[in-house]
Amino acid sequence: MFSFDYEIRVRYVETDQMGYVYHGHYATYYEVGRVETFRAFGFPYKELEEQGVMMPIFEQNVRFRQPSRYDDVLTVRSIIEAMPDTRMVVKGEIYQPEGKLINQSLTTLVFVNRHTLKPLRCPAKLAEILTPYF
Amino acid sequence: MFSFDYEIRVRYVETDQMGYVYHGHYATYYEVGRVETFRAFGFPYKELEEQGVMMPIFEQNVRFRQPSRYDDVLTVRSIIEAMPDTRMVVKGEIYQPEGKLINQSLTTLVFVNRHTLKPLRCPAKLAEILTPYF
Amino acid sequence: MFSFDYEIRVRYVETDQMGYVYHGHYATYYEVGRVETFRAFGFPYKELEEQGVMMPIFEQNVRFRQPSRYDDVLTVRSIIEAMPDTRMVVKGEIYQPEGKLINQSLTTLVFVNRHTLKPLRCPAKLAEILTPYF
Amino acid sequence: MFSFDYEIRVRYVETDQMGYVYHGHYATYYEVGRVETFRAFGFPYKELEEQGVMMPIFEQNVRFRQPSRYDDVLTVRSIIEAMPDTRMVVKGEIYQPEGKLINQSLTTLVFVNRHTLKPLRCPAKLAEILTPYF
Repeated sequence: MFSFDYEIRVRYVETDQMGYVYHGHYATYYEVGRVETFRAFGFPYKELEEQGVMMPIFEQNVRFRQPSRYDDVLTVRSIIEAMPDTRMVVKGEIYQPEGKLINQSLTTLVFVNRHTLKPLRCPAKLAEILTPYF
Repeated sequence: MFSFDYEIRVRYVETDQMGYVYHGHYATYYEVGRVETFRAFGFPYKELEEQGVMMPIFEQNVRFRQPSRYDDVLTVRSIIEAMPDTRMVVKGEIYQPEGKLINQSLTTLVFVNRHTLKPLRCPAKLAEILTPYF
Repeated sequence: MFSFDYEIRVRYVETDQMGYVYHGHYATYYEVGRVETFRAFGFPYKELEEQGVMMPIFEQNVRFRQPSRYDDVLTVRSIIEAMPDTRMVVKGEIYQPEGKLINQSLTTLVFVNRHTLKPLRCPAKLAEILTPYF
Repeated sequence: MFSFDYEIRVRYVETDQMGYVYHGHYATYYEVGRVETFRAFGFPYKELEEQGVMMPIFEQNVRFRQPSRYDDVLTVRSIIEAMPDTRMVVKGEIYQPEGKLINQSLTTLVFVNRHTLKPLRCPAKLAEILTPYF
């Protein structure tokens, strides 16, 4: 298993007139969390794209337990529980500063060739990096 | 059952460097679809909020089958299959102009008092409007 | 001169916790207005890009006179007062339903080759379409 | 004069199909820069709002000199050159990692009472904090 925590501060533009973060922006928070997770284990997502691999989202489930507010510093936890194959599943959790879990997600991504858009298996370099964790 | 179709044209800002609509924006498309569904059956969401009721999202599952592109005119279908109680479940489907289904969602919303944030049952006026459809 | 009006309904995601449209979203409204203006005079922006021309923004000035609110139907007016050359200047105005002017902008765009990013003159087809208006 | 630098990493959602940051998102970068500037001199914007003061934008001019790309770490400089009175003018500059200036802005904000929306002078506490810098 590989788990990584990253802090994100809520921006004004992300609030809506309810006074909370608009629900659609959690997708962005989870994505920033995944990007920083990739950086943390040494294979920035940008490099992946430069090597001709894209990772579009196949499915995403989000559960909104509690709202978050402007200027909150949220901790986004990204958890990879299984070795990626043709898909990569990332469990996401968002915590408020005092440690309360406020949002949960399950995101399934696929690997595709950037030019042909054909499905790919997990790139060898990524598999090599992740193997020790499983 | 109540079903309503609404057309949305993809904006430039909604694309990302993959050349497709960024996944997080589908939450917005589905929300615009729900808002127009409420307007279609005669109870604009804005009025609901003015009467002290908010409908935050409790859970949302989105399945991305095919991408969409800049300037595409998408049809967003919002389907209410069951009479709302303390929750309202909306099935969402997005179609390309030629009729291909490219995105699916299931969204659970709850009714809360705008000021106390306490859960509410479906407001009487809304229940009255929807009853004939079930 | 070429002037075109297009209606945009304010989305929930575009509001912020002040209860108004977040200032940064007016750039999107003006861009949607320009895109529909291009469609109106018969040269969709999408075709322009397909022909290898991009129109990045060089400068944009926005004046926020009055706020707008969720569900407002705004009229976005795009005004081209001079024949484009290496640049195209678009004056933008946003009106509330009752006709009050609430936002103004001046946007300067440039023509560039999509691949080399080198500056271009206004494409011949676009010049031909616009000439009768000036 | 008060000047403050803050680093922002470009998110995937902020790119568009040109492969660059969508122009409208610079408004967000400048706003995050101002928010962190307020935090830096000891009066978080959130507190200002809690004390009943809002600072809507009156006017914003943005000049786009060079584009920025996904994953770039941008430095946002916020410069207050004059003591705020009924208005506060913030000069903004965005630099790429190697120090190149890629974007410039001038933003005029006003102080208003959060409840009455009436214009206010710069709050006493803020004036007190800023006075030593001018």
